[in-house]
Amino acid sequence: MNTPTGLSLGELADRFALELIGERTVVVRGVGTLAHAGTDQISFLSNTRYRGALANTQAAAVVLSKADAAHATGACLISANPYADFARISACFEISRPVDAGIHPTAVVAAGAEIADSASIGPLCVIDASARIGAGAILGPGCIIGRDCVVGAGARLVARVCLVERVQLGARVLIHPGAVIGADGFGLAMDAGRWLKVPQRGGVRIGDDCEIGANTTIDRGALEDTVLEEDVRLDNQIQIAHNVFIGAHTAIAGCAAIAGSARIGRRCLIGGGAGIIGHIEIADRVVIGAMSLVTHSLREPGEYCSGTPIQEKSAWRKNAARFRHLDELARKIKPPGSQGNEH
Amino acid sequence: MNTPTGLSLGELADRFALELIGERTVVVRGVGTLAHAGTDQISFLSNTRYRGALANTQAAAVVLSKADAAHATGACLISANPYADFARISACFEISRPVDAGIHPTAVVAAGAEIADSASIGPLCVIDASARIGAGAILGPGCIIGRDCVVGAGARLVARVCLVERVQLGARVLIHPGAVIGADGFGLAMDAGRWLKVPQRGGVRIGDDCEIGANTTIDRGALEDTVLEEDVRLDNQIQIAHNVFIGAHTAIAGCAAIAGSARIGRRCLIGGGAGIIGHIEIADRVVIGAMSLVTHSLREPGEYCSGTPIQEKSAWRKNAARFRHLDELARKIKPPGSQGNEH
Amino acid sequence: MNTPTGLSLGELADRFALELIGERTVVVRGVGTLAHAGTDQISFLSNTRYRGALANTQAAAVVLSKADAAHATGACLISANPYADFARISACFEISRPVDAGIHPTAVVAAGAEIADSASIGPLCVIDASARIGAGAILGPGCIIGRDCVVGAGARLVARVCLVERVQLGARVLIHPGAVIGADGFGLAMDAGRWLKVPQRGGVRIGDDCEIGANTTIDRGALEDTVLEEDVRLDNQIQIAHNVFIGAHTAIAGCAAIAGSARIGRRCLIGGGAGIIGHIEIADRVVIGAMSLVTHSLREPGEYCSGTPIQEKSAWRKNAARFRHLDELARKIKPPGSQGNEH
Repeated sequence: MNTPTGLSLGELADRFALELIGERTVVVRGVGTLAHAGTDQISFLSNTRYRGALANTQAAAVVLSKADAAHATGACLISANPYADFARISACFEISRPVDAGIHPTAVVAAGAEIADSASIGPLCVIDASARIGAGAILGPGCIIGRDCVVGAGARLVARVCLVERVQLGARVLIHPGAVIGADGFGLAMDAGRWLKVPQRGGVRIGDDCEIGANTTIDRGALEDTVLEEDVRLDNQIQIAHNVFIGAHTAIAGCAAIAGSARIGRRCLIGGGAGIIGHIEIADRVVIGAMSLVTHSLREPGEYCSGTPIQEKSAWRKNAARFRHLDELARKIKPPGSQGNEH
Repeated sequence: MNTPTGLSLGELADRFALELIGERTVVVRGVGTLAHAGTDQISFLSNTRYRGALANTQAAAVVLSKADAAHATGACLISANPYADFARISACFEISRPVDAGIHPTAVVAAGAEIADSASIGPLCVIDASARIGAGAILGPGCIIGRDCVVGAGARLVARVCLVERVQLGARVLIHPGAVIGADGFGLAMDAGRWLKVPQRGGVRIGDDCEIGANTTIDRGALEDTVLEEDVRLDNQIQIAHNVFIGAHTAIAGCAAIAGSARIGRRCLIGGGAGIIGHIEIADRVVIGAMSLVTHSLREPGEYCSGTPIQEKSAWRKNAARFRHLDELARKIKPPGSQGNEH
Repeated sequence: MNTPTGLSLGELADRFALELIGERTVVVRGVGTLAHAGTDQISFLSNTRYRGALANTQAAAVVLSKADAAHATGACLISANPYADFARISACFEISRPVDAGIHPTAVVAAGAEIADSASIGPLCVIDASARIGAGAILGPGCIIGRDCVVGAGARLVARVCLVERVQLGARVLIHPGAVIGADGFGLAMDAGRWLKVPQRGGVRIGDDCEIGANTTIDRGALEDTVLEEDVRLDNQIQIAHNVFIGAHTAIAGCAAIAGSARIGRRCLIGGGAGIIGHIEIADRVVIGAMSLVTHSLREPGEYCSGTPIQEKSAWRKNAARFRHLDELARKIKPPGSQGNEH
């Protein structure tokens, strides 16, 4: 998937302020991995454990750090942040498709909805009378924009995104298909032996430049709002319960679940499948391991994990059986030196 | 989000049979948290650890227990079940929007579908010829009602709910967007080195007053039905496999997964991200901790957990490494007093 | 749900090359469980622990192994693979509904899309100009087929399936509602304190005869493709990240999550809720336990698990507290026989 017209290595070096070791005039038309890039493609190295692949790459040039460049035999574009500069270069070769402003004739837009002239509303979207769609926003096919929802300028809802009620999206928010934002929080009171639904009267506020993955769900708040600050990045299939707060620049990997009223700091990294129970606080710059469960507040930055290592089943089974009696076992262990005292 | 016309504290006390400590004539227009309620809003206290917030609340009155009322300085509405009574009061202030009965012109309703006159079918719904929609049922935009599906009276499918095949919903069932009910169970037989699909000929029966969260999936049975009794409450992103049975009044938090033919009792509480393997039974009134995995039947009510605590990573890593050899370790531990015998 | 016209036991025995013990002329009209099959239904026994149910079944005949047949009192259809043969017999009684070829008038098909004459495009589907739909493919209501997507011959997208971009489906692929395939992978570079999106330029290739569950997500690759070989079977709510490779005949249970660039072998069985971290390799014929987390490559076939057993909470809590100090505890344990040396 190369572009028809290429860019020279010299142009790329200049545009992104990279040091080029190699011929300025070589023309490239796309990007690829070290293993599979063609001679007209750029590749990158950001993880030193792939350094060995430098020797055999056919890439026209490799974006890498100064330290790694010493190991390269071909052309290099030296960068202080190779992965970010590679992302920028890769974007140069994306063939974007123009999106026409306007409302597709099959969209169902209620009278009263405020839709910017420059917005694009795709086929079979449904937009409530109280909704507002900002300038340059793009709604792909099948999106549903419910009561009192606001889509910020330049936001993009790829397809089949559902904003249920009282959802506010900032500028340039990107949402992938199947995401449901602003559904009722899971609020129930036990009353005379039956569940009584607790009205969910809050909304959801999502800051500028957030990204929300496919089939991810973010419930609206019970009394106040569920909040994502700016530049929060959520992968697929994540569940964010009512009244959660997520600080700016935090990224959460797929299938993680955050329970109600948890407060997560800025610049955190939450691993895939991790769980965070309700009503606790997580400091800024906390890193949570994959499938770890956080059951109490974490007040200090750092890395945290729970769980046990993967093992061959028969060994695991024996160890797990011992875990069932670990406290008992521990009580049998004497402090070192204590034997002497007993004799 | 207050209502334009208010209610007096006296009216609320009378309507819900609460003891009012304070002025009957004070008018309130909405609800809020202890921390943020305005002087024309009602708040509540149901968790004693927030008792400290009573001192500073500006709320017009607080719904709370007799015991907590002793700590309040402002007006109180005393309740035997403050969270439930607060839910009822909150509902008084919801501004509901009338829904018109009838079929939206963009809905695709096959000839033969039986739709009650009082039902409301939203834009871009698709309804199979063999489906039936009960009195007062509300289908929001984009719902798909497949073959041999029945939607009970007063049920509400918020938006983009998919009932695939042979799904029966009781009265007043509430389903949030993205839920898929009645898809094929995961039934496969290995046959000469390839998977052979096992026909999934059962259905799904969902009792009255159940609630099903956004993007939750409930598969239909292989030979008999997958069953939820009445008043079962499922949060978002839950997976219920074929032939699961869930007893009345059980509530399950987000991202839990129940494998095929598991049988769960009544009034259970299943924590977020918990897993229950197939073909086991869980008694009534069992509580399962978040992200715990149930691998055998639990025949007694009570609370159950699995997993290890969250820890700073370097400490966790050392402990986890020891877990790999726990059985070996345990074999080295002598019962107390055994040393004497050896000497 | 029996069929109106039946089949005799003799016909079934002949058709599937089974040994019949019983009357050839008995007519059956459907299938059922051992416990609930009627006298005109076929049942099966594939798990010897249900052998006790043979005594009381009313089924017209039971499909079972030679060994189990010795315990049966009624008619038997003896099979080398009872579950597979039962699946085939069950399929004989499915009342399939003919699907008309052609494009539903409410579908939005862009000019340029190539759609086979024998394909069926359901109501409210949206198909991009660059998409291709193969012979005999069936798209149920509400499917979205995006840019450069190809649906193979005989594929079936049950309803509301979304192929986002550059997705290629092989022949006879079956996809359940809510699945999202080909969304952006979760590729981010940290750049001057903000996340920078890494273009996701690869696609997704799905082999023949794969099945993909409801609300499952499969992201497209960053530079190369995410790949499922033939006959891969994915249950509901699974997350497959960018550039994952899954070998033929592997089956993955609900809610599992596979992180980016993981490579999974052929004929693996991955348990429900299991996690596999990125950039690791799993050999052929590996079995992973439910909710286990795989954090390093597994180079040998076999069964693997992680986690701790479910326990009554108060016992679990004590054991979990000990886990926090397991390394310390272990250091206190003297190798057996070491006491002697100390005295």
